[in-house]
Amino acid sequence: MKILEETVQKIDKLDTEMIESAWKRVDSLIKPPKSLGRLEEIAVQLVGITRNPSPSVERKAMIVMAADHGVYEEGISSNPQEVTLAQTLLFQKGLTGVCAIGKVSGAKITAVDIGIKGELPEDSGVIGRKVKHGTENMAKGPAMTREEAIRSIEVGIEMANREVKNGIQLLGTGEMGIGNTTPSTAILSVLKNCDPLEITGKGAGVGPGGIEHKASVIRQAIEKNQPNPSDGIDVLAKVGGLEIGGMAGVMLGAAANRIPVVVDGYISTVAALIAAAIEPNAKDYFIASHASAEPGGRLASELLGIEPMLTMDMCLGEGSGAALAFPIIDAAVSMMNHMATFTEVGMEI
Amino acid sequence: MKILEETVQKIDKLDTEMIESAWKRVDSLIKPPKSLGRLEEIAVQLVGITRNPSPSVERKAMIVMAADHGVYEEGISSNPQEVTLAQTLLFQKGLTGVCAIGKVSGAKITAVDIGIKGELPEDSGVIGRKVKHGTENMAKGPAMTREEAIRSIEVGIEMANREVKNGIQLLGTGEMGIGNTTPSTAILSVLKNCDPLEITGKGAGVGPGGIEHKASVIRQAIEKNQPNPSDGIDVLAKVGGLEIGGMAGVMLGAAANRIPVVVDGYISTVAALIAAAIEPNAKDYFIASHASAEPGGRLASELLGIEPMLTMDMCLGEGSGAALAFPIIDAAVSMMNHMATFTEVGMEI
Repeated sequence: MKILEETVQKIDKLDTEMIESAWKRVDSLIKPPKSLGRLEEIAVQLVGITRNPSPSVERKAMIVMAADHGVYEEGISSNPQEVTLAQTLLFQKGLTGVCAIGKVSGAKITAVDIGIKGELPEDSGVIGRKVKHGTENMAKGPAMTREEAIRSIEVGIEMANREVKNGIQLLGTGEMGIGNTTPSTAILSVLKNCDPLEITGKGAGVGPGGIEHKASVIRQAIEKNQPNPSDGIDVLAKVGGLEIGGMAGVMLGAAANRIPVVVDGYISTVAALIAAAIEPNAKDYFIASHASAEPGGRLASELLGIEPMLTMDMCLGEGSGAALAFPIIDAAVSMMNHMATFTEVGMEI
Repeated sequence: MKILEETVQKIDKLDTEMIESAWKRVDSLIKPPKSLGRLEEIAVQLVGITRNPSPSVERKAMIVMAADHGVYEEGISSNPQEVTLAQTLLFQKGLTGVCAIGKVSGAKITAVDIGIKGELPEDSGVIGRKVKHGTENMAKGPAMTREEAIRSIEVGIEMANREVKNGIQLLGTGEMGIGNTTPSTAILSVLKNCDPLEITGKGAGVGPGGIEHKASVIRQAIEKNQPNPSDGIDVLAKVGGLEIGGMAGVMLGAAANRIPVVVDGYISTVAALIAAAIEPNAKDYFIASHASAEPGGRLASELLGIEPMLTMDMCLGEGSGAALAFPIIDAAVSMMNHMATFTEVGMEI
């Protein structure tokens, strides 16, 4: 709890003076005012985050949190649970979707075992920070204890700190966990105070009972555990997941280090909601990436209040959408550092 | 006319067998089927275009067509007309928005004087292919003769051929031309058969009479010239622009060479409509980039039938949105070439 408390205390609001002077520079560049839209907003946000008028995001890392879910036994997914472990091993080998997409911007991909069921080989290259062997079945009781939920967040903070110490200037969050649209939808249902069926989608493949069954399992979990919507950690513990806590931790850790963090799709956006519930200022450090094809995705983004830039009909997870947004953030920085001003070119408009 | 005819004859439909086997490969990659959405579609499209199962788009070029507009004298823009010439000189110096964004993917930027009013210095580095010193005022008569319109398209074809000869594997289209949302909106009004006021926006800055005045100038131009909506060249000649013709030519040239071409925002999408009106098969070679903040942008994309991937509230032109999409296309190729298949990793799902 000490790490979490100390981290949250370090999360300041963005530097308003830096932001004001960044807007002055952006408005002085040779283009009609605001004509580069979101690129301008990102550039200004980066200045406010880093307190550097010419920020760099050259060194990028994606942290992929992997964990399993006790609620899997309710038949909410059509995929074998073993896929979580098997797929996690492939991140370190550079073979998965996020690895292929991350290559475009030279992002480093790190996988973290924060709660996979079963043991990974010692030489897997995956960072071992297992809080437990998957969550408990939330349909029957809390997914985790409050202490475990905090520990999952603190693992994320540790990972963010580690990357920042390595010189990373831009972070992204990703996940791997068979069944994890189920806890994500549970969290979103609690925070939005809506019936799960309204926002339940098929995830990576819905189980034999279909979407109705998945929604009813989520409804049961919420009724059973009665999470407190005004307490982010309570919601995470009772109906969340270890990788969701881990991602929330990465986001809080990034914010505490004044490093921008790119939020991926549905599950990552739900983790961002948990992070923002713990510390609302953290949101200023987030950059949304893509609109997930999962039905809850749009709602989660709306609730968080940051709008995705990419509409790709993607729903892979792993941080694939966040990695796809990395070059857009490069472009915002390039605009700031390489475009001429009207004065520089002797033009008066 | 001979160049245009020969080019159009070379534009084939995509290779359906190659597309089918590309889908097989994409579906065999370690991810839930279709979970990389548009990236998968782009990868398959690239295979169909290039007839190469592992296509490359490493060498990229953006062709920026620059021209002026006679209709400027009707007071449809708040920017001085001289900006077209002044800004065009800055592309070769790497100082404009598209240059900064293009740096991210290493794209080569080439500016072409296809109809700027006035003369550029000889050492400007801008490619000189002036068809005429800006169009005529379309509010009073046709913007160009049919021969001039065809010549503008053929300049674009020549530029595409030139880049392909240089080894370019991916093209993008951009433009510079003060006042060019006015002819773009005129073309779109004719093709959509709607009143200009419904789709007229402020462009880079609307003239003193506001949007109503701009729309009434467009309405007058259409009434005066009576362009034939089923004849793309007639529409281009009567209410279009030289840079719009040039971009349509780049697109037709790209398609004839089996090279993918990224369409930028509003003006570029209107040029794509002209290209598709001349040869409907050309559309299969287009990749949409961003949804322009200009009101006609969405309508133009709908009419063309290709959906933008990026929502950035951008309206700079220059090819800036197309350049921002270049890394997304890199990601699609990387997915195809670097992700493992289920068989390769010994996974059965």
